[in-house]
Amino acid sequence: MFKAEVKADTLKGLVNVISTLIDEVKFSISPKEITLKAVDPAHIAMIELNIDASAFESYTASQTEIGLDLDKVKDVLKLSSPCDIISIEQDESCGRLIFKVGNITRRMNVIDTSSMSDPKVPQLNLSSAVEVSAIELQRGIRASENISDHISLTVSSDYFELACDGDTDSISLKLDKSQLISLTAGEGAANQRYRSMFPLDYFSNLIKTVPSNISVKIELDNDYPLMLNFALSDGKSSVKYLLAPRIESD
Amino acid sequence: MFKAEVKADTLKGLVNVISTLIDEVKFSISPKEITLKAVDPAHIAMIELNIDASAFESYTASQTEIGLDLDKVKDVLKLSSPCDIISIEQDESCGRLIFKVGNITRRMNVIDTSSMSDPKVPQLNLSSAVEVSAIELQRGIRASENISDHISLTVSSDYFELACDGDTDSISLKLDKSQLISLTAGEGAANQRYRSMFPLDYFSNLIKTVPSNISVKIELDNDYPLMLNFALSDGKSSVKYLLAPRIESD
Amino acid sequence: MFKAEVKADTLKGLVNVISTLIDEVKFSISPKEITLKAVDPAHIAMIELNIDASAFESYTASQTEIGLDLDKVKDVLKLSSPCDIISIEQDESCGRLIFKVGNITRRMNVIDTSSMSDPKVPQLNLSSAVEVSAIELQRGIRASENISDHISLTVSSDYFELACDGDTDSISLKLDKSQLISLTAGEGAANQRYRSMFPLDYFSNLIKTVPSNISVKIELDNDYPLMLNFALSDGKSSVKYLLAPRIESD
Repeated sequence: MFKAEVKADTLKGLVNVISTLIDEVKFSISPKEITLKAVDPAHIAMIELNIDASAFESYTASQTEIGLDLDKVKDVLKLSSPCDIISIEQDESCGRLIFKVGNITRRMNVIDTSSMSDPKVPQLNLSSAVEVSAIELQRGIRASENISDHISLTVSSDYFELACDGDTDSISLKLDKSQLISLTAGEGAANQRYRSMFPLDYFSNLIKTVPSNISVKIELDNDYPLMLNFALSDGKSSVKYLLAPRIESD
Repeated sequence: MFKAEVKADTLKGLVNVISTLIDEVKFSISPKEITLKAVDPAHIAMIELNIDASAFESYTASQTEIGLDLDKVKDVLKLSSPCDIISIEQDESCGRLIFKVGNITRRMNVIDTSSMSDPKVPQLNLSSAVEVSAIELQRGIRASENISDHISLTVSSDYFELACDGDTDSISLKLDKSQLISLTAGEGAANQRYRSMFPLDYFSNLIKTVPSNISVKIELDNDYPLMLNFALSDGKSSVKYLLAPRIESD
Repeated sequence: MFKAEVKADTLKGLVNVISTLIDEVKFSISPKEITLKAVDPAHIAMIELNIDASAFESYTASQTEIGLDLDKVKDVLKLSSPCDIISIEQDESCGRLIFKVGNITRRMNVIDTSSMSDPKVPQLNLSSAVEVSAIELQRGIRASENISDHISLTVSSDYFELACDGDTDSISLKLDKSQLISLTAGEGAANQRYRSMFPLDYFSNLIKTVPSNISVKIELDNDYPLMLNFALSDGKSSVKYLLAPRIESD
């Protein structure tokens, strides 16, 4: 059983972030929260999302799983203004979801989840962490376009740098400690720096999608996956995003 | 002889509605009004338009016919702000129309109307009628996209429904009597309902084009053409639109 | 040596005008100004641009030449708001230009200028001249679309006309003396008029790009090149633009 009401804006923020990775997803629903774990088809990135019941205007659910095509949910979102309340209810008889916005009722087929297994989210213990506002990352991403198809992220004891080096041109976004919300760089020598390279498209698709006014926590090591943590739904949803590094060959 | 001045906005409203059906049209001009009757090339829809002389800022005409390519009139509209006055005059010597907007003069070739006959607009006596605001229909149309290529319209004694049923998903816009401007549903039994199906693209192209704030009168029967009536030009133009039904085969 | 700061908006206005003609350009830099002379690949139009040092927020330069791909400069402009200050400095060691906007640093390869010779700008002594506001020309250009691929410009003793004559339709933008900022029409007979035809695309691309609120000086003769003069950067840059006529064959 699942029945909830949610602000269009809240639902949109969640759907947009997930669909940078994958369109057909399985939501694991419990009386207290909804969780989702997914990898992209190429197994380069992984997302773990927790939506607390308090992110909804109203919420009643028993333990269940629902498989959805997010493109169809986006069609419903196009019918809504940001503050519209969307009601969602599972039809007990046939399993379909019933979305209501204003006078419109949309019945949506669900996807069979029996073959969709949850990916195992690895426990990573990364040596450095910075917290940076999304708008800075968004400017760095835009500057990297047309330069190269991968970026490097670096954390040292006193700065964070996003860089993109092409054959002839290069860009760098460098933020010193005072321009960051927080910075922790290992327990090694004072000059230690942590640096890995990542595919620009994955990083860019995600960062362009998050609200400009949130802060993103970035955890980083040398030639290791990246871990991003940030909140959505006014702090009532949390996102963990892992991205595989691009190892430079000699 | 034809000479008139018209607000760009008024002309645009009329041209947009006609050009959902057809681009090359014949206007029948009299001293008191302009009329147009046209069918689309596939003979699925028909429009009858009456523009009263009072829809114009100034108007002087004798009985005549003018054939026009509406794409060219749209080019003139692109040069105008909504409140600009466009002056239109027929050059008596060569028949061409002379449009003036500000300092720009555009001379436009007319189309030979001798081979353009008026379609006969059938007299229909349909059993039900509702009057509904265009903005509701526009929301219903948007919700129907990606679901199916035809919609059904239903009128019963106490509601109007626009529905679209696809293979897996469906939508419904249901308005009860209190949400409609008026509703008349035949003289049959109390539970009688009238329902026909129509091609989504024709209905959608028209409804998207009309101003959101007008009301549209819909007349409907079982597996019969649809008749729409609405006013443009602040009530000084009237449009009748007929759309052939899609008969469901067993 | 070259080091300067410039408002994003000022740089954008200059780059947009040059790139209607050509993308890879050579700037000749002196302690007092930057100049550029370029023809388009088809040798139909020529531009001569002078940017006074005072157009910059700060400016220090010795005599030098820098070759740039304007598409890359546009990438930098996309990162900036109109009032952002962009700092530009040449790296003495490798010749590359270093652009800085906010926290972003972009290193840009320069183009070898040794094979880029300055075109000779012909001295023309044209018989008529009008000064007209860019917004009027922009409306004339828009009205000419879909009519023909060339326009004619005419200056007589009491009017300026931009006309476009197609096979069936035509447009005319006619401005009498009172609607022009200035008009000088030769020293010939009172009824003398000067008229040449030009390719619409070149004229249109340039005129659409200039700010709507500036005035453009047009110098014209019979079947002769057109010379346009106008100011950018709040009067601190001057542009001369020459366009070859299209001679009508009999």
